[in-house]
Amino acid sequence: MYDFAAEPGNNELTVNEGEIITITNPDVGGGWLEGRNSKGERGLVPTDYVEILPSDGKDPFSCGNSVADQAFLDSLSASTAQANSSAANSNNQVSSGNDPWSAWSASKSGNWDSTDGWGAKPEGAAAQRNTSNNWDTAFGHPQAYQGPATGDDDEWDEDWDDPKSAAPYFKDSEAAEAGGAQRGNSRAGSSSMKLPLNKFPGFAKPGMEQYLLAKQLAKPKERIPIIVGDYGPMWVYPTSTFDCVVADPRKGSKMYGLKSYIEYQLTPTNTNRSVNHRYKHFDWLYERLLVKFGSAIPIPSLPDKQVTGRFEEEFIKMRMERLQAWMTRMCRHPVISESELFQQFLNFRDEKEWKSGKRKAEKDELVGVMIFSTMEPEAPDLDLIEIEQKCDAVGKFTKAMDDGVKELLTVGQEHWKRCTGPLPKEYQKIGKALQSLATVFSSSGYQGETDLNAAITEAGKTYEEIAGLVAEQPKKDLHFLMECNHEYKGFLGCFPDIIGAHKGAIEKVKESDKLVATSKITPQDKQNMVKRVGTMSYALQAEMNHFHSNRIYDYNSVIRLYLEQQVQFYETIAEKLRQALGRFPVM
Amino acid sequence: MYDFAAEPGNNELTVNEGEIITITNPDVGGGWLEGRNSKGERGLVPTDYVEILPSDGKDPFSCGNSVADQAFLDSLSASTAQANSSAANSNNQVSSGNDPWSAWSASKSGNWDSTDGWGAKPEGAAAQRNTSNNWDTAFGHPQAYQGPATGDDDEWDEDWDDPKSAAPYFKDSEAAEAGGAQRGNSRAGSSSMKLPLNKFPGFAKPGMEQYLLAKQLAKPKERIPIIVGDYGPMWVYPTSTFDCVVADPRKGSKMYGLKSYIEYQLTPTNTNRSVNHRYKHFDWLYERLLVKFGSAIPIPSLPDKQVTGRFEEEFIKMRMERLQAWMTRMCRHPVISESELFQQFLNFRDEKEWKSGKRKAEKDELVGVMIFSTMEPEAPDLDLIEIEQKCDAVGKFTKAMDDGVKELLTVGQEHWKRCTGPLPKEYQKIGKALQSLATVFSSSGYQGETDLNAAITEAGKTYEEIAGLVAEQPKKDLHFLMECNHEYKGFLGCFPDIIGAHKGAIEKVKESDKLVATSKITPQDKQNMVKRVGTMSYALQAEMNHFHSNRIYDYNSVIRLYLEQQVQFYETIAEKLRQALGRFPVM
Repeated sequence: MYDFAAEPGNNELTVNEGEIITITNPDVGGGWLEGRNSKGERGLVPTDYVEILPSDGKDPFSCGNSVADQAFLDSLSASTAQANSSAANSNNQVSSGNDPWSAWSASKSGNWDSTDGWGAKPEGAAAQRNTSNNWDTAFGHPQAYQGPATGDDDEWDEDWDDPKSAAPYFKDSEAAEAGGAQRGNSRAGSSSMKLPLNKFPGFAKPGMEQYLLAKQLAKPKERIPIIVGDYGPMWVYPTSTFDCVVADPRKGSKMYGLKSYIEYQLTPTNTNRSVNHRYKHFDWLYERLLVKFGSAIPIPSLPDKQVTGRFEEEFIKMRMERLQAWMTRMCRHPVISESELFQQFLNFRDEKEWKSGKRKAEKDELVGVMIFSTMEPEAPDLDLIEIEQKCDAVGKFTKAMDDGVKELLTVGQEHWKRCTGPLPKEYQKIGKALQSLATVFSSSGYQGETDLNAAITEAGKTYEEIAGLVAEQPKKDLHFLMECNHEYKGFLGCFPDIIGAHKGAIEKVKESDKLVATSKITPQDKQNMVKRVGTMSYALQAEMNHFHSNRIYDYNSVIRLYLEQQVQFYETIAEKLRQALGRFPVM
Repeated sequence: MYDFAAEPGNNELTVNEGEIITITNPDVGGGWLEGRNSKGERGLVPTDYVEILPSDGKDPFSCGNSVADQAFLDSLSASTAQANSSAANSNNQVSSGNDPWSAWSASKSGNWDSTDGWGAKPEGAAAQRNTSNNWDTAFGHPQAYQGPATGDDDEWDEDWDDPKSAAPYFKDSEAAEAGGAQRGNSRAGSSSMKLPLNKFPGFAKPGMEQYLLAKQLAKPKERIPIIVGDYGPMWVYPTSTFDCVVADPRKGSKMYGLKSYIEYQLTPTNTNRSVNHRYKHFDWLYERLLVKFGSAIPIPSLPDKQVTGRFEEEFIKMRMERLQAWMTRMCRHPVISESELFQQFLNFRDEKEWKSGKRKAEKDELVGVMIFSTMEPEAPDLDLIEIEQKCDAVGKFTKAMDDGVKELLTVGQEHWKRCTGPLPKEYQKIGKALQSLATVFSSSGYQGETDLNAAITEAGKTYEEIAGLVAEQPKKDLHFLMECNHEYKGFLGCFPDIIGAHKGAIEKVKESDKLVATSKITPQDKQNMVKRVGTMSYALQAEMNHFHSNRIYDYNSVIRLYLEQQVQFYETIAEKLRQALGRFPVM
């Protein structure tokens, strides 16, 4: 789609607009793909510089497929990329235009789709969230108010010393900026779930076929156990848990100071050994987690990385707080926290180990729905009806909670605005009005009103103090309520795709009878499919139980905190007013 | 100006547009004057149906005038009224166009005028307040919100069974309605001080000459003593004070039920003997007090008598509350409360006694500035410089307080709106959002979150309760602060005219040297003038001392009350939130 000039010595491939290149590896990580041009030259090209075209070639990543699966896959795999000049629709064209899965899921999962826009076909949902669920278009966060989301994006210089690898984010950023202030969730909507589903069709989409119809799943070294506990299916929680302290953001620079970035110190509480990571490393981790676990586990997006020059310190503090929340969330998750990917992020010893771990992770094939192949529930097989009911229940709940969370966020935003804007201004005006009245009274020349005037002046000052208290209060209580709901909104935004994958799998099983009848698959194949959808269902239930227990804990904590702070707030005001009252002479 | 058809048997005079009638008594009360037409027929005509024209005839009310005074008076007195068709400017034409006093005061009291618009020439100030000081245009009072100030004015039927006598108010009402909601103060501005100065030039304006230049003031039976106390000149306070309880508003009717009105029961605390009065009687009293004492004592206007049909009960309650405040204010004033006029209003025994008292009051000649002739300060004579300084100080203070009071009213109005509008709505939304979240949570099917969900529901209900508390609170505290300031705004609105009268008298004395030089007056005349301006100054100081001591008491009380209620309010909220917090499970 665009001209791209390779940097020498970087293993990059120069491509020109309109040139057709063959993708040899659709995802080498960091927004790059490996391609081969007509001259047979191979090299890396930024994903967003190319548009993926349908082809009849083989998907180099598909393996162990059945005949039927192969038929599905054939139309998709081994894509050819054409660098042409039709901008803007590079991703969507792949996902909705050229991907038979999208059509399949649109026609087959109709009953799910009909619930409402939120539950529309997964691909649509992702795109839709990009506009309608954009948290920060609807909810300009406190911190976001402190500076406009301008084009003056220092962050690019800070974290993205390599402009080419930044390309996919830059596109997202542009899109989000067009719609208003940008924040993490817009990414969660647009890039997060889109990435594995749209950009790497070799992984996510045909993966479902691959997973459901594989004759035998290779026993992976990494096993994710699911057991049945008191509350139903659950992940196995590690005996010792840990958190990770994100601290000490420092400005680093490279290229002789031309490019600067912020580096954070991460200290896992179990090892107490710190590692440093830049935001772009977090972003890499997020993407990899999404690619690997995103079909089973909601991976909340990272805090937005945009920063305006003016309030840099405030912003960095805020972002660190959110990175901390994100890390804590990841550490709390029994599957994520124990994963090699995550451990490696926290525990690499040197640059070399980090780079090799990075490469390894990027070559991981157990991604997308294939993650379910690592799961072996110690539980009886489920029948399809039960599976479907469970899935619908999760869909219904997460949709309803999404609505509830958004409602609270909307109200909270409104309240935040009032508490930091007109309300304190009004208290200040009351304070000023009382003080000027006292000043006038003092000019009366009448004897014996000194005490009264001093008292009125004090009352006025008290209202000015109250103005300050009111304006500062949201940072002490509403902020945390908002952050919590913001985080959950991020979680919930992942569910349409997760549910979509499950629905897709269920539909797949439903239509498998036909495939059996036409001998496209064997009855054993079908049995495997049911079992595997059952595994997915157990995973979903385990994840939901994890989600619920966290939710209960989080909301209990945050509402408690909110109420505690509110009580203190009102008590402080009452006490201040009582003191002001005490100064009035008794007549 | 208008055709007016006399009702038979009512002592009324029929006049036609353009007809010239001679005024034989410019004020027989209730908005009527007595006139004689070209045929020699005499009778009553509504004041607003006629326009007063200059004439060379004698003012039947002027008496004991000096030569110089007579010259001033000649151009004014014995007005001839012409009923013509030029509407709208009936009053203003009299005051500014044909009244040499207005020109005089405009040119002579320049230094006072220049302070700012508030201190502009008295006549102008009155007109100006009508637009800029309209309390209710700026401050839609709580009660005023409860119904639009429509043309559907039940009050006309209620209190003004005689549509003709209602004419002057109707005009005011129309003017005020054009500018927004109407309330008492617009009347204070437009009609109150205008009435004696403009409508009865025979009284108020030439009264100054009459008062200052009379060879000898007739010792009036009614003496208003001024003594010098610890705080300076002061009225003499009666040994026993009383209040008057306004209660039990009842609907009465006359003309076979065609016209209805509200009657209030008034019970003075000293006699404990009740009398009934309709609003129009209050209005009559107000006008007479204004005519009689208005040059020396600020007479706050009555609460507006407009009422909308929809919220009649609320309105009647509100008006009664304000009538009560007004009566209490009058009872507190040593000069007003002891006056025959006021006593007669509270203590008449029957209809006959009331009517004769009414007639007597309306014939009272000790009105306007002549009220100063009843005052004999037991104090040394003042020199003109001191008098002028005192007057300026009062002007400066009342102007500054007027600003301060208006500021507080504006802020209070804004706060009222917020507290009764968007703020509780927001708390309600927070409450609803929490409750719907709890409802969603309850649908999770996850065990062991019943307590949490019950607690969140309760927290939500608490915020709904808080919404109610917030919305109701202004009635408990802000209301009284507003009422107090509203009342003081009414007082302060009277000062420009009072100060204007004083300034006028001072200027008169200043130019008296010329009159002495040209033998228009004797040196003794001038000495009398200084003494009499001194009396006015003592009266002003006495009134200001009364004003200040009331002000200190009132503001101390009302701000104390406000703070007490606010403390209670915030404590109640804190307590409610504490209870809500207590319901959350400890995890």
